[in-house]
Amino acid sequence: MTKICGDAENFATSALRGFASLYRHIVQPVRGGVLRSRPGKQGKVTLVVGGGSGHFPAFNGYVGSGFADASVAGDVFASPSTQAILRIAREAHLGGGVILGYGNYAGDVLNFSIAAERLRAEGIDTRMIATTDDIASAPADEASRRRGTAGDLPVFKIIGAAAEAGLTLDEVEAIGRRANDRTRSFGVAFDGCTLPGEHEKLFHVPDQRVALGLGVHGEQGIDERDLMRPEELAATLCERLLKEAPANGGSRITALLNGLGCTKYEELFVLWEAIIPCLENAGYTVVAPLAGEYITSLDMAGCSLTLTWLDEELERFWCAPVETAAITRGAMNAPVDHSLSVPDEAQAVYMKSLTEAGRQGGRCVANVMVKLSEALTKAEPELGQIDAHAGDGDHGQGMARGAAAAARAALAAVEAGAGPASVLAAAADAWADRAGGTSGALWGAGLFAFSTAFDDSARPDAQGLLLGLTRAKDKITALGKARPGDKTLMDALSPLVAGFESGLRRGDSVAKAWTNAAQDATLAAEATKDLLPRLGRARTHGERSKGHPDAGAISMALCARVVGEQLSALSVK
Amino acid sequence: MTKICGDAENFATSALRGFASLYRHIVQPVRGGVLRSRPGKQGKVTLVVGGGSGHFPAFNGYVGSGFADASVAGDVFASPSTQAILRIAREAHLGGGVILGYGNYAGDVLNFSIAAERLRAEGIDTRMIATTDDIASAPADEASRRRGTAGDLPVFKIIGAAAEAGLTLDEVEAIGRRANDRTRSFGVAFDGCTLPGEHEKLFHVPDQRVALGLGVHGEQGIDERDLMRPEELAATLCERLLKEAPANGGSRITALLNGLGCTKYEELFVLWEAIIPCLENAGYTVVAPLAGEYITSLDMAGCSLTLTWLDEELERFWCAPVETAAITRGAMNAPVDHSLSVPDEAQAVYMKSLTEAGRQGGRCVANVMVKLSEALTKAEPELGQIDAHAGDGDHGQGMARGAAAAARAALAAVEAGAGPASVLAAAADAWADRAGGTSGALWGAGLFAFSTAFDDSARPDAQGLLLGLTRAKDKITALGKARPGDKTLMDALSPLVAGFESGLRRGDSVAKAWTNAAQDATLAAEATKDLLPRLGRARTHGERSKGHPDAGAISMALCARVVGEQLSALSVK
Repeated sequence: MTKICGDAENFATSALRGFASLYRHIVQPVRGGVLRSRPGKQGKVTLVVGGGSGHFPAFNGYVGSGFADASVAGDVFASPSTQAILRIAREAHLGGGVILGYGNYAGDVLNFSIAAERLRAEGIDTRMIATTDDIASAPADEASRRRGTAGDLPVFKIIGAAAEAGLTLDEVEAIGRRANDRTRSFGVAFDGCTLPGEHEKLFHVPDQRVALGLGVHGEQGIDERDLMRPEELAATLCERLLKEAPANGGSRITALLNGLGCTKYEELFVLWEAIIPCLENAGYTVVAPLAGEYITSLDMAGCSLTLTWLDEELERFWCAPVETAAITRGAMNAPVDHSLSVPDEAQAVYMKSLTEAGRQGGRCVANVMVKLSEALTKAEPELGQIDAHAGDGDHGQGMARGAAAAARAALAAVEAGAGPASVLAAAADAWADRAGGTSGALWGAGLFAFSTAFDDSARPDAQGLLLGLTRAKDKITALGKARPGDKTLMDALSPLVAGFESGLRRGDSVAKAWTNAAQDATLAAEATKDLLPRLGRARTHGERSKGHPDAGAISMALCARVVGEQLSALSVK
Repeated sequence: MTKICGDAENFATSALRGFASLYRHIVQPVRGGVLRSRPGKQGKVTLVVGGGSGHFPAFNGYVGSGFADASVAGDVFASPSTQAILRIAREAHLGGGVILGYGNYAGDVLNFSIAAERLRAEGIDTRMIATTDDIASAPADEASRRRGTAGDLPVFKIIGAAAEAGLTLDEVEAIGRRANDRTRSFGVAFDGCTLPGEHEKLFHVPDQRVALGLGVHGEQGIDERDLMRPEELAATLCERLLKEAPANGGSRITALLNGLGCTKYEELFVLWEAIIPCLENAGYTVVAPLAGEYITSLDMAGCSLTLTWLDEELERFWCAPVETAAITRGAMNAPVDHSLSVPDEAQAVYMKSLTEAGRQGGRCVANVMVKLSEALTKAEPELGQIDAHAGDGDHGQGMARGAAAAARAALAAVEAGAGPASVLAAAADAWADRAGGTSGALWGAGLFAFSTAFDDSARPDAQGLLLGLTRAKDKITALGKARPGDKTLMDALSPLVAGFESGLRRGDSVAKAWTNAAQDATLAAEATKDLLPRLGRARTHGERSKGHPDAGAISMALCARVVGEQLSALSVK
């Protein structure tokens, strides 16, 4: 809902002043709208666009070089007044006649029509173009009754570019009508918007549902269904639009994926990734598409896809330079040759071990990594639940992902005949790359430090393991700054190292020393439930973790036990 | 909440691919981030920025000419992995050394530090700049512990421009540290955000409350209070930041008002309008400020203000050309001379009536307009309530505002000695200008049509009133397309015209004929409660209006009664 709002009745005016002050290199304010701060050439056709406020960057953000000469902004979701349109069109007029551009809504049609009549009576040749792109708002055989939505952007942008190029009023009008005739939008809504000063949303879409074709002011839609996956949503949008391809539309289109306010950029990009194949599989070439917020509805959640079928002229004007708050194009970066190849990622190259013992050792290490991966995959839900008490609950996921990547990398290194140091280093890097988060970085760095204790031409032995374990602990301590008692993985790692060292000193076998130490680590990990965290961010280590063990310590102990089992099975000396 | 999301674990990767595809004239994708599609000059310092996903345009949108050379994006709200940073920094490196730019969060510090160590070991001179602009996250004497938030944009932009200008690694690093040392942010949160795939928000701010200094991932804030008016919020933000002005800060600053996702553009502009005077009254000149979404947190609601105290060098690099998804500058429009005066609005000029009767008639018309304004102001709440059943509930407000403006304009015309036609025409235009909405346009156009029936040199008479009333009705019918029975103002206007005409034909006095007709209109207006609307938008004329009269008809009847009282008082013939 609107959280920043003084007197609701002044909201639109205040927003207009704030906008004009910020963008004064592009616009200058007049009462009820803005003009370009650097007017276009005398004699050119003047484009005046307008509609209700609450849709930024529509319509004030459309004013600037290569686009509109002026905008007229009504109150929130209300048409601008006839007088405001008249006054601003008169001020903006450059002698070549006026095009009034607006969406096809009753209030706007009314006010722009009356203004056009008055302007003509004053001797200013004036044409009106009401966008009618929203295919959900009326059937195809009543296309002139359709609402104008995000089609405003391509249609007005093309008109603005044609006017900037010096075409006559008749020519610009014809291009504008063609652009509108070849533009289709279809939108979905996830939730309504809140008018400034109100506490309740103006309308609602039920939770977990999506309304198809619902208008941005709450106008009736055509269907409602459960939330869809991106591919399904993309297919729905594309199918409905492509079914209405204009006659002689050709195969070149532009596409605008528009967010309504609270459906954010990353979501739009995820959807866009699913839209591209739909359009390309239908045989279209997509020219200079846009995805972002180009015509919003306050804090409404939802999005729409707009397609404009281009011809040579429309494409030229769509791609022409423009500088406005809404869109900037043709600045420093000329179009890039899209055949430019994305550099392939470097293939890892592993040094083959010089000895059979080394290659055997490498296989042992890889085998341990595979077992770790299996165990962590199995433990993923439980680790997630434990972590949820203190953090995002993603610890299990990260560990499982990291271990799986490590196992794959280790096997690839074994395939190349690498020894234990190289296999563990490869596993370490892969773990760090895929696990994510703090624990992923610490595990990656720790395993890498561990690997430096191994010799590529020999099987790991007791001393190598102890040295590796100690180096891993030191590295993790240096990076993570945690000490035992801080409720971190260190609470398990520390007794593991201590127990392993004293077991070896007592003369235990490697397997026995490790297994006992892993048991100590397990008890210590469970005992972290009695600790309160002393490090890290409030959110991830707060009071919420009271009475629950630390997920990092638990997973560290689990790994220690798995390694112990493998050491027993392999009877490492 | 997130409504477009496939598998949550692929959300960030999918968003990255979608983004890179859309912006391929600026970036090219690599695994885990993007590079510039046109690399910078060989030998220049390379800026690599990064952090968690979910903050678009941070950080992938910061890549492009004049800004970063590459970005590394972790999972949602998670640091990128050491390996990803390493790999991308290696690919992006142009031979002049690397600056790693990131916010001061534990996970990021960890991964960027390990990566820096590895890059240095490979012979690439690497420096780290962690932003620490958020003054809410630690006291001033522990500034190095502070979080990095929207300060990322100015600090990294300045570093990017300095690198683009060909400065050495030492110089660029020094400028970056200075920019960070001179940058302060303070933010407020209105509500938390939803992680992709989750149903619940990650954290909440209570309704009607604002959390001061709350971190964008839910990190603890410093205070919570009731929602504030824009001026109060602006003062709060500015005071806290200005109290921490750096030593030798000077009087030139830039300001960035950043929206977190669901606090929309118009709200930010409203707040910006309140921020300017705070900064200017404190003696600052604000250079090239920005307000918009530059570092978001999914669908979080809130905003932050960032100030960077400039010196000559920082200002030059802040204003330098840039082309990225996040910000574009220095394209077609050179800075505008801000002394450029905004054109004054034309003063209305009224023709003085040639006769005393005409001037008297003008006074009568103005008097009626004043009474209408009084009555509509009084009726505003009631009309609003009636309208709320069918629409926005703003009908009373619009009518009151229109009538008040009409009365003022009429009095100004009387002051100039205008006759009835001119006075009513002035009132009509003012009404249309200020009332807003469909009814404002119709009332304006109707009154203007009415005025053409009057003679400026005579008092209005019975025939003038009947002709005017008929012209008004015809005009409104032509524009609004409504007929009696459609549940609009026409249901009252139509019996008014018919009743007045037949009264006059019966030989009633003007006052009696009008008063009776106004009574018919009142009954007809109330009877609209039995009608269902047949025109207009579903939202404003839906089933909800069942059983309630039409507000437009009710206000038309009210106006008719007021005019009747005045005609009786003035005993018009």
